[in-house]
Amino acid sequence: MAEERRGQQRLRVAMVGHGFMGAAHSQAWRTAPRFFDLGVEPEMAVVVGRDPERTEAARQQYGWQTASTDWRAVVTDPDIDVVDICSPGSSHVDVAIAALEAGKHVLCEKPLANTVAEAEAMTAAADAARAKGVRSMVGFSYRRVPAIALAKQLVEAGRLGTIRQVRALYLQDWLADEDGPMTWRLDKSLAGSGSLGDIGAHAIDLVEHVTGAQLTTVSGTLETFVPERPLLADGVGLSGTASSERGQVTVDDAAFFLGRLGGGAADGAIGSFEATRYATGRKNGLTLEISGSAGAIQFDLESMNELRFYDATAPAGAQGFQRILVTEPEHPYMAAWWPTGHLIGYEHTFSHEVKDFVEAIVAGTDPSPSFDDGLHVQRVLDAVERSAADGSSWTVI
Amino acid sequence: MAEERRGQQRLRVAMVGHGFMGAAHSQAWRTAPRFFDLGVEPEMAVVVGRDPERTEAARQQYGWQTASTDWRAVVTDPDIDVVDICSPGSSHVDVAIAALEAGKHVLCEKPLANTVAEAEAMTAAADAARAKGVRSMVGFSYRRVPAIALAKQLVEAGRLGTIRQVRALYLQDWLADEDGPMTWRLDKSLAGSGSLGDIGAHAIDLVEHVTGAQLTTVSGTLETFVPERPLLADGVGLSGTASSERGQVTVDDAAFFLGRLGGGAADGAIGSFEATRYATGRKNGLTLEISGSAGAIQFDLESMNELRFYDATAPAGAQGFQRILVTEPEHPYMAAWWPTGHLIGYEHTFSHEVKDFVEAIVAGTDPSPSFDDGLHVQRVLDAVERSAADGSSWTVI
Amino acid sequence: MAEERRGQQRLRVAMVGHGFMGAAHSQAWRTAPRFFDLGVEPEMAVVVGRDPERTEAARQQYGWQTASTDWRAVVTDPDIDVVDICSPGSSHVDVAIAALEAGKHVLCEKPLANTVAEAEAMTAAADAARAKGVRSMVGFSYRRVPAIALAKQLVEAGRLGTIRQVRALYLQDWLADEDGPMTWRLDKSLAGSGSLGDIGAHAIDLVEHVTGAQLTTVSGTLETFVPERPLLADGVGLSGTASSERGQVTVDDAAFFLGRLGGGAADGAIGSFEATRYATGRKNGLTLEISGSAGAIQFDLESMNELRFYDATAPAGAQGFQRILVTEPEHPYMAAWWPTGHLIGYEHTFSHEVKDFVEAIVAGTDPSPSFDDGLHVQRVLDAVERSAADGSSWTVI
Amino acid sequence: MAEERRGQQRLRVAMVGHGFMGAAHSQAWRTAPRFFDLGVEPEMAVVVGRDPERTEAARQQYGWQTASTDWRAVVTDPDIDVVDICSPGSSHVDVAIAALEAGKHVLCEKPLANTVAEAEAMTAAADAARAKGVRSMVGFSYRRVPAIALAKQLVEAGRLGTIRQVRALYLQDWLADEDGPMTWRLDKSLAGSGSLGDIGAHAIDLVEHVTGAQLTTVSGTLETFVPERPLLADGVGLSGTASSERGQVTVDDAAFFLGRLGGGAADGAIGSFEATRYATGRKNGLTLEISGSAGAIQFDLESMNELRFYDATAPAGAQGFQRILVTEPEHPYMAAWWPTGHLIGYEHTFSHEVKDFVEAIVAGTDPSPSFDDGLHVQRVLDAVERSAADGSSWTVI
Repeated sequence: MAEERRGQQRLRVAMVGHGFMGAAHSQAWRTAPRFFDLGVEPEMAVVVGRDPERTEAARQQYGWQTASTDWRAVVTDPDIDVVDICSPGSSHVDVAIAALEAGKHVLCEKPLANTVAEAEAMTAAADAARAKGVRSMVGFSYRRVPAIALAKQLVEAGRLGTIRQVRALYLQDWLADEDGPMTWRLDKSLAGSGSLGDIGAHAIDLVEHVTGAQLTTVSGTLETFVPERPLLADGVGLSGTASSERGQVTVDDAAFFLGRLGGGAADGAIGSFEATRYATGRKNGLTLEISGSAGAIQFDLESMNELRFYDATAPAGAQGFQRILVTEPEHPYMAAWWPTGHLIGYEHTFSHEVKDFVEAIVAGTDPSPSFDDGLHVQRVLDAVERSAADGSSWTVI
Repeated sequence: MAEERRGQQRLRVAMVGHGFMGAAHSQAWRTAPRFFDLGVEPEMAVVVGRDPERTEAARQQYGWQTASTDWRAVVTDPDIDVVDICSPGSSHVDVAIAALEAGKHVLCEKPLANTVAEAEAMTAAADAARAKGVRSMVGFSYRRVPAIALAKQLVEAGRLGTIRQVRALYLQDWLADEDGPMTWRLDKSLAGSGSLGDIGAHAIDLVEHVTGAQLTTVSGTLETFVPERPLLADGVGLSGTASSERGQVTVDDAAFFLGRLGGGAADGAIGSFEATRYATGRKNGLTLEISGSAGAIQFDLESMNELRFYDATAPAGAQGFQRILVTEPEHPYMAAWWPTGHLIGYEHTFSHEVKDFVEAIVAGTDPSPSFDDGLHVQRVLDAVERSAADGSSWTVI
Repeated sequence: MAEERRGQQRLRVAMVGHGFMGAAHSQAWRTAPRFFDLGVEPEMAVVVGRDPERTEAARQQYGWQTASTDWRAVVTDPDIDVVDICSPGSSHVDVAIAALEAGKHVLCEKPLANTVAEAEAMTAAADAARAKGVRSMVGFSYRRVPAIALAKQLVEAGRLGTIRQVRALYLQDWLADEDGPMTWRLDKSLAGSGSLGDIGAHAIDLVEHVTGAQLTTVSGTLETFVPERPLLADGVGLSGTASSERGQVTVDDAAFFLGRLGGGAADGAIGSFEATRYATGRKNGLTLEISGSAGAIQFDLESMNELRFYDATAPAGAQGFQRILVTEPEHPYMAAWWPTGHLIGYEHTFSHEVKDFVEAIVAGTDPSPSFDDGLHVQRVLDAVERSAADGSSWTVI
Repeated sequence: MAEERRGQQRLRVAMVGHGFMGAAHSQAWRTAPRFFDLGVEPEMAVVVGRDPERTEAARQQYGWQTASTDWRAVVTDPDIDVVDICSPGSSHVDVAIAALEAGKHVLCEKPLANTVAEAEAMTAAADAARAKGVRSMVGFSYRRVPAIALAKQLVEAGRLGTIRQVRALYLQDWLADEDGPMTWRLDKSLAGSGSLGDIGAHAIDLVEHVTGAQLTTVSGTLETFVPERPLLADGVGLSGTASSERGQVTVDDAAFFLGRLGGGAADGAIGSFEATRYATGRKNGLTLEISGSAGAIQFDLESMNELRFYDATAPAGAQGFQRILVTEPEHPYMAAWWPTGHLIGYEHTFSHEVKDFVEAIVAGTDPSPSFDDGLHVQRVLDAVERSAADGSSWTVI
């Protein structure tokens, strides 16, 4: 292929992992430069996986130039500029630290790590690398939903006033059927966490991002509604359970917690959180509601192009939640896409992530959310688990 | 006036109290016999208040035959059959017990009492009276919203399967403005409780009514966001605060609690509750969501004629929350009102309450919710307060 | 019963007709004085019907003092002040003219009459009576939905700017099943008109009322989707069809028309109208959408406590349809009812109608909508029928 | 770049035109093979435009291999397999016929042409080419919205029964401000048509596609609300108007028409259509409502991932519009994308179009919609214009 954009420098990207997240990231690397002027031309250089055949299949499907099964070689390859980590959480710490030490910019999927200790080591590596101009970012992609970015703008502009209450629920229902099979995601030794870490982490980051405040203490409850589930015939992905007929669910089905927020417009606010896989009828219902002295917002990821805003300073009798269809050129990220009223979808948030990440690399600034932000979320998750283990007692983060 | 319905017995009613609830109850006594065939003809005999002038004004406005300031005389008047108690919570215990001992059927507004001890005494009196054929009922009127009655039918028919999670929020916003004035409702010595008792009580009763289960343990948090508020010039209704410029808010602004449910289709479920006066933009948002293995329901009192139902047993690809406009003759209570598609409003729930109460009197059966149900709600409120005072520890009801 | 409000004059009311509308009007006469200070005390003096037994049953059920089968005697009874006409459309002309000539104030249900000629005669009688201080009003009760009254306020305040388009649909579905039985409503000789006159009349009045403009020309289409329907065994209400097995539907099932508006903020606007009984799933869906240069509104009678308002003058990026829950004391009629956030229902519009009618009588002013307004609607209906008969040609009203 | 998928044949694509539609088609050609197994590997060979610099810029931005300003050379280039026409409507006839005669498969954006005569010539060319195995398709991409595809499935499965009424509105508001500038889209000599052809064409195709019926006669009205608009300083795109200060709007601002449908489940149904650029607050509101004897559907392009379905055969009391979030693997096209509950956006419909087009080429079948379908829409548009010019008389298509 001829040079895509004459005079533009290349940014050669390696992607580690090629599951569902790999598909989303590939689409973002392919798409972002077509809609945003990034200043460099990203090149989808290499995809890395464990299994040679499956990695080659992913290369073909997702359109990477080459495939590799040797992540250590790739992350130290002088021809690689960026390492994009989409592999399971347990692998993040090794890959990220090696890549950062090799001077590669790193985009790491959430959760940053499976434990606080791992996240601390990664954050230290990111700090050391930052001193050398190496950029790092953690992939809480929902920050890049335009409606969420608009919500943050409204908060920052004072349109909500003093925030008193926040409610963030992440509602899914794929476990509602108690006869659904056991999977690796329900085995703590493989998945690390259940609803709390998988989807609750998004809710935490979103609340802190939009309000500009941080959780300081939490009171949490974890629940496993269905403790045993049928094993699939092949027992794929399950450790040591292949011979029995039912497997033990060792992670939380649902997590509930309250937290106090400190800082920003939400100083002193109370946040109410829930993450569940038993919310029958809700498929990907990340809902956010923020109530302040001057206004309120409502958001639901299942209607991700909409933000509802209530202006409590409007004249009496003329107040009401206003459905803003966040598709206008004035809205964050949207000028790059389609005319007003044309929706974007889930994967666009990853294109926005790639855009912001690459722009930060080019500008020599630190992208957000940082590994430090990722570490903080990890600490919140840890505090919720400790609180739950201690009878929901309020626990400092 | 000529005899309204020939051959029908009269049921002479005394109403104690004539505030907002008195207006609603008056409208119900006036309306119920016009739309339902009650078997007797209620007669709005006497309204009782403290202040002679205001009571007479209420008599005229609400259309009662006579007015009185002597509740003790009224509740023992042999010409009175029913005592309807709409006065403040602190007065319930004396009026109800006297009326029950005098053999009057008693309809008592919620909350049943201000303390568990009072509620226990009232329940004991109700039990004693029941043995003599005297009926008693507590006024959780939202049970009589047709959409709520339909939700209960769906649960009882097994359409939700095993219930795992319940979320009940009562959202108001009249305190969102921190410069709003101090009122008697924010003074614990007068109001007894804040959001928790005032509106949280409705959420508790609704969850237990619809699921058929009872809360057994709770973990709660109470919060007062704005501890001081401006005193009104006249200091009306505030005890001992008239000389200062700001009054102390001594009740909860918002209450959050988790509870475990036992019994019925929701045995082992977790309920998440919130009652707040700071939910900017929500005026009377009593929302109920119930998630089960076979289905789910959603309800919002601000759209009280609608119930959303999700049937998880429908074929894959054809599932979705169904907006049922609960205005058809097949729906509870609705055959008596208007043609399909015509809405009813807030006060209709009181007409339904009167209907069910009077029908129970006529049939010689016990109406529901009983004083015992009211006592149970009181015990839940008490357990939430104890849990909140003990760092949100799980507390047995 | 003792005098209700000392010092207040009585207004003795006779109601002619006791079907569905009679129930609604009775509830309004009973309720309005309890929530509004009318200045006089309406007295439900006599209900008039054809059949003695059914009229007496209605008297008992609806709570009128006496019953009569002689409407002529009643409307000339010196003891009667107001005649409220709820009988079938064909009877309006005789009753109204007799009552007006006898000096009674007349509230007449819509449609004013079955033909333009009848409506003209009634309007002439109303004009003659007006000169003697006699008031007349036609019952387009939906004008008194608070959300509609608010919409009119917004138009009048210029919040919609120049109105260009209006869409008014009245959607019902009770004929969607082609095996549903033949009824008198489908026989032109009995019903006069189908969807057009029954529900389309409401849409016409609502558009003209809210915009302040009048239709000047129309292009219409009438359709009968199911020309024959099964006859009920008893053939009740059907003239001369008892011996056959299927009856001919001789009215329109659905009516569609465009109209040009003249005057007010909507001068030159185009209105799109539809009235149908085949809109599967819609029960009482009177929807109104108005688009102007500065804003827009949306209304649906199935959510009658809500108005959606779009402010096109808000800053770019912060525009959206705002759901106003029309339950605040600042909203039309609502201060009289319940606290903010508590809904009202269908029959409240009739209480508002009675309030406005009685207040006009007391004040000696002319209530609205006048018989002239009712005549105009009749002329629009007639023009639509003529246009439909002439291949949808544009027809002057 | 190494061969993308070993063993797969290439399909070399030329795209003519590179405006807004070119961006959407480019994204589709780039994306479709990454999510669907097409059986061949499309290659984005050449983009064609008039202006060399702008075409080269488009090549770089949209990622095509080469750029050309000579469409005739490109469409006869033996190395090209597919011609994708995204240029203005007036150019379609020449490019499409030349490409078809050269044996290229042609995907042509809607509207097929600017006149019925052009569309007839193109359809004749497509018929001739079909005989030689050359495929042609017109780009009514909204057929590929999964919710629309699901609606069609429901109709075909008889879930709506006999369809009686259809309402299809295409609502935009970019002309609501009367001071908005004159543009080439409002000049008939350049744009060919106004709302009717631009967006009304989508409404027509959608109704016929989903119902399986065709419009046979129409009664239409065209309206230009604002006949003159300010000219932009540079007068870009306006013919012969540069010297005056205001330009004449020579196309319709809004189009309204009724039509009778013949064939399929909607035989005898009436369709109500509207296309407008004055629907204040609606940005891209293509709404579709279909009412049948057994059910109904509702769709709004501004919530394109949702379909509302009403099942009139469900038990009485349990009916209601069901919001289906069309994101499940069972739903059309969706298995290829993200997990349940994750939305797709506007441009996905073009990826689906490319998928279906390429699959038809590979399978040797005729894709749909055909040029014949495009011609039919053109004839409907023409009939609406003729009817409008003749006082809305019913006009045969």
